[in-house]
Amino acid sequence: MQLGKFIDLNSDMGESYGVYKYGADEKIMPYISSANIACGYHAGDHHVMRKSVELAAKYGVRVGAHVGFYDKQGFGRRFIDISPEEAYEITIYQIGALDGFLKVSNMSMSHVKLHGALYMLAMDNKEIAEATIQAVNDYNDQLEVYALPNSIFAKCAEKVNLLVINEFFADRPYENKQVKMFDWTLEEIGKPTDAGKRTLTALQNGIETICIHSDTPGAPDIVKHVCETLVLSGWTIGRGDHHKSRKNIIQS
Amino acid sequence: MQLGKFIDLNSDMGESYGVYKYGADEKIMPYISSANIACGYHAGDHHVMRKSVELAAKYGVRVGAHVGFYDKQGFGRRFIDISPEEAYEITIYQIGALDGFLKVSNMSMSHVKLHGALYMLAMDNKEIAEATIQAVNDYNDQLEVYALPNSIFAKCAEKVNLLVINEFFADRPYENKQVKMFDWTLEEIGKPTDAGKRTLTALQNGIETICIHSDTPGAPDIVKHVCETLVLSGWTIGRGDHHKSRKNIIQS
Amino acid sequence: MQLGKFIDLNSDMGESYGVYKYGADEKIMPYISSANIACGYHAGDHHVMRKSVELAAKYGVRVGAHVGFYDKQGFGRRFIDISPEEAYEITIYQIGALDGFLKVSNMSMSHVKLHGALYMLAMDNKEIAEATIQAVNDYNDQLEVYALPNSIFAKCAEKVNLLVINEFFADRPYENKQVKMFDWTLEEIGKPTDAGKRTLTALQNGIETICIHSDTPGAPDIVKHVCETLVLSGWTIGRGDHHKSRKNIIQS
Amino acid sequence: MQLGKFIDLNSDMGESYGVYKYGADEKIMPYISSANIACGYHAGDHHVMRKSVELAAKYGVRVGAHVGFYDKQGFGRRFIDISPEEAYEITIYQIGALDGFLKVSNMSMSHVKLHGALYMLAMDNKEIAEATIQAVNDYNDQLEVYALPNSIFAKCAEKVNLLVINEFFADRPYENKQVKMFDWTLEEIGKPTDAGKRTLTALQNGIETICIHSDTPGAPDIVKHVCETLVLSGWTIGRGDHHKSRKNIIQS
Repeated sequence: MQLGKFIDLNSDMGESYGVYKYGADEKIMPYISSANIACGYHAGDHHVMRKSVELAAKYGVRVGAHVGFYDKQGFGRRFIDISPEEAYEITIYQIGALDGFLKVSNMSMSHVKLHGALYMLAMDNKEIAEATIQAVNDYNDQLEVYALPNSIFAKCAEKVNLLVINEFFADRPYENKQVKMFDWTLEEIGKPTDAGKRTLTALQNGIETICIHSDTPGAPDIVKHVCETLVLSGWTIGRGDHHKSRKNIIQS
Repeated sequence: MQLGKFIDLNSDMGESYGVYKYGADEKIMPYISSANIACGYHAGDHHVMRKSVELAAKYGVRVGAHVGFYDKQGFGRRFIDISPEEAYEITIYQIGALDGFLKVSNMSMSHVKLHGALYMLAMDNKEIAEATIQAVNDYNDQLEVYALPNSIFAKCAEKVNLLVINEFFADRPYENKQVKMFDWTLEEIGKPTDAGKRTLTALQNGIETICIHSDTPGAPDIVKHVCETLVLSGWTIGRGDHHKSRKNIIQS
Repeated sequence: MQLGKFIDLNSDMGESYGVYKYGADEKIMPYISSANIACGYHAGDHHVMRKSVELAAKYGVRVGAHVGFYDKQGFGRRFIDISPEEAYEITIYQIGALDGFLKVSNMSMSHVKLHGALYMLAMDNKEIAEATIQAVNDYNDQLEVYALPNSIFAKCAEKVNLLVINEFFADRPYENKQVKMFDWTLEEIGKPTDAGKRTLTALQNGIETICIHSDTPGAPDIVKHVCETLVLSGWTIGRGDHHKSRKNIIQS
Repeated sequence: MQLGKFIDLNSDMGESYGVYKYGADEKIMPYISSANIACGYHAGDHHVMRKSVELAAKYGVRVGAHVGFYDKQGFGRRFIDISPEEAYEITIYQIGALDGFLKVSNMSMSHVKLHGALYMLAMDNKEIAEATIQAVNDYNDQLEVYALPNSIFAKCAEKVNLLVINEFFADRPYENKQVKMFDWTLEEIGKPTDAGKRTLTALQNGIETICIHSDTPGAPDIVKHVCETLVLSGWTIGRGDHHKSRKNIIQS
């Protein structure tokens, strides 16, 4: 097998809350290599977190903290004007809470991904990027962070030697290489085959992880198709070990 | 100095929330050896938790998770009929969240203390006791748990070899050796000197930690007086190392 | 048309929350005569409330406040040990909030129904029954209250001359004339035809409203079948005007 | 007594929450003519609301809804990017909830005042201004709205014939006639006598209500001094009846 032919497939999991079911977690988990689990701030709760960690464990899927604004009613999708200090604090709180459930399942956290409006904010806003990056780095400098390629967030992470994973959103339209995260139409997203084509193109540009949201209409079909397309194109779904060697190069 | 002449002095800290200040944390922290920090469920939030951990660090005070019901409006003081499964989950979540802040401060969690209505419930209810104990034990079997002497909770903890710290409430009235946790009067609590006297008596009965609530009227004076009374009686405030040897005995 | 041949059909509506959809509101609303709309405490939020009121208006459905514990994560289904004073206050708050949306839609509130664990508690607990009844009565003594027949709650309401509507749950099993509100199985609920049969039997016992929960599996089919069964048996779905005359009798 | 020599004195009341006490409500209520009571979104809860309404009733103080963002942890002081539709909905919900408590106390709501970040946002943002104004107007077109003079919010209100009350903040510094609502220093606020002087100057510019925040350090002394200064200068504290005649003029 060729070195470096690994591609990570990630999805946002654990976004249910109390009686409220959300996302096709059970159908998607078998196909992905990394699950970003909500931590009770923008979605999820202590029960959903435990169940989500167990589901990830069942399929050998890596677990990362999906860190969002404290705004369940808005699902973390609207901007809240928090200070960098508070961005640091909400990141630590959420990572810690999820890590509790990983610890009792004998698992380790692999990565951190910001969610929704906080994700978009941190990609462009240096103060918030630095604060959240510092939180991740202070907590565990071996955690990977998912980011838009060439974003301010990615650069901040690289500056402190955190491993950045360049992310592409297979189920979101792109305009002028900019992801359209909100207010997209189903027509813009297109069929699963469109997502597959977009993904293959993206892989030519240094993309290291493919995200498919678990709440996109038809998400299980999209995930399945993208997964199969990747495998047929010679890719192995997963992070592989190549990031470790790269990490060593950076640190030496 | 005589071996075993250590006595732990603990207080509930970090119960402020947003703009809401609560408890005399700054005045009490210098006198105590163990701080039970609220974890955002019954009180506290991510900001208060970080500040409280830093305050504890400043005075070399041990930090434990103060685990309560998810009920900020009721301050965790009223019973909620949760399942043992959920008792397990809220314990893991809260311990994990606090541990995040300890980790970035290079500190370790020393103990877990349940709060308010959950504390009283777990002392008597075997299923809830077992669930919360299992959560602590699964997370870290070196954590101490604070408990009423001879409670069901204490027995459950001992059964899995968790170290139980027998607790006495210096600022609460006792009737027939039962602590009156709620609905007490200021007259029943009395002066700081009354708390001091109650404490010295309690120490003859195998008590290992003395609690003074940070929100009891006059708390700083009570803490200061109890602390001085103990020191004048030859006690050293702190957990000392004797628990480690005891732990070894239990495990061997 | 025969006097008294009206039967009310009610359902819990507006239990969605933020991005979380819950209940088959759109499918059920056309068949019912009374909607109990959640008020943001156990379920619902300001947006869902507005949309639910508009949906009820579209189908000419009466609107009542569905008053529950402040516990969205538990969906108001678990007991919380609140004081009668607080039971009064949460009732006023929720009725008032919903009434705001009715007012801007030029509608009037017709009734109040307690939800979940608060419903079951108030049926048996005199203090909580009296407190919630007093809240309804203080707010508007023309509001109807839905209740289990012969419950303490029903008796408290009658004592202050509030109009009690005796309720039967078509989609819940009954054992010894006691409704099994929680922990039922789908087998116990049976088919829509079973619900229809149970309903016809219940009507012989002075029942005045039939409830079908919008989140029961297959709820739209159950509602449709029960509705058709009732109509075929000569009933008109609705509260009619007979309650007004009865009310007059009581008051004179 | 001279016509028009009335001046309204308002303060934000009812900002406590659960065990958390906030603001000097008891000391301030005797001096003011209008209380803006928090409605459980940015502060307050059902219990605090009831107690606040009772306290206002005791001193014959007018009650208005203090409408804020749904963000208790941030006390409604940080911007949240909500849609105009949601601004409408949160306004209706909060007004309705408070009106419930007024109704059971046989009182009427006199005015609406936005809180914190929502106040500042609505003063400048036309869409949010129009949405909140429409909510007030749809609910009850006799409600007064408090506003910064000449703000977009004030103009929107005037366009629909809502009565605007021009507001001055006695306990906040002004720079170039712009109020500095956040990040002020105690030095900038100065002594109670400084607040008194600022107030007298402001009255020459068409100000109709003077606000003193209940949580400003030394608030009771400031309120007392401003109140006395106004009375000594010949003003009567209160809204008087002149607004009604003005209203008639506008409407004719």
